[in-house]
Amino acid sequence: LLSSYANRLAPVCSQVQLGFRYELRDQRFTIYVMQLLNCSALCLPADHHIHVRVAVLPCVETSRCLFRTCGSSPQDAVQVNEVFGVQISQGALRQKTLRVDVCHMSMSGHEQCLAGAQVSLADVSCSEDRRTRLYNLLNRVYMSDISNKDDEPRT
Amino acid sequence: LLSSYANRLAPVCSQVQLGFRYELRDQRFTIYVMQLLNCSALCLPADHHIHVRVAVLPCVETSRCLFRTCGSSPQDAVQVNEVFGVQISQGALRQKTLRVDVCHMSMSGHEQCLAGAQVSLADVSCSEDRRTRLYNLLNRVYMSDISNKDDEPRT
Repeated sequence: LLSSYANRLAPVCSQVQLGFRYELRDQRFTIYVMQLLNCSALCLPADHHIHVRVAVLPCVETSRCLFRTCGSSPQDAVQVNEVFGVQISQGALRQKTLRVDVCHMSMSGHEQCLAGAQVSLADVSCSEDRRTRLYNLLNRVYMSDISNKDDEPRT
Repeated sequence: LLSSYANRLAPVCSQVQLGFRYELRDQRFTIYVMQLLNCSALCLPADHHIHVRVAVLPCVETSRCLFRTCGSSPQDAVQVNEVFGVQISQGALRQKTLRVDVCHMSMSGHEQCLAGAQVSLADVSCSEDRRTRLYNLLNRVYMSDISNKDDEPRT
């Protein structure tokens, strides 16, 4: 059915380690971008630096929702260790989805995203502790493969 | 920065309730698509039925990875209650990402997806119990908004 996927199946998927904390008193949501693992599975073009783009969506005009880490030279494991904060009420936060993408800048200065994770914040915990987790990164190739399937009549 | 988001911000986001179970003995991963909530936030065209498309990605040719629920008439809350199963080893499952999209069929018979959730299966539990959770659905409008930003040089 989706046979084109098979040929591009990487043996190990790349992952991003993220941490979250919500401080109820300050109404502050903190996102820790900790590290990238198995970056060789990203099929990055040679000699490109990679960065992580973080978006808290949907975005409202009054607050910043888009962040980028500094660029790192591509290695199989990349220590990122950058922290971003958003001022937001708990109720609003639970309507949000976090989109995290690994990107690189093309020669012409355009941002190209290779793979990403999407995290629903519907049940984000309000503990003061930082919770960390590894998330698989889905290569954008697979997203567009599904989208192309939209052009085929449903069976 | 992303001011175009603000005008399209729905007051309440739509959500999908999903359940998962992995049976180690049978090496079987079961996905329960339970219900959709706040579908009015999907901005569905009038008189269209909606269905849920579930993909376990990346897909290998030897196993089925793409499933669709039956169509439902659009209401604010839609009971779906459909179950899909995938035969897969625990190690392979933990490399996968689940993509869940709410879609409708256009008049010409093409599948159009309105919003989706993406769930990393990196730490999927191997309990025999079904775990259920609500996931926020991110409207595809926001995804394409970010993609359009790729054409702007990085600041």
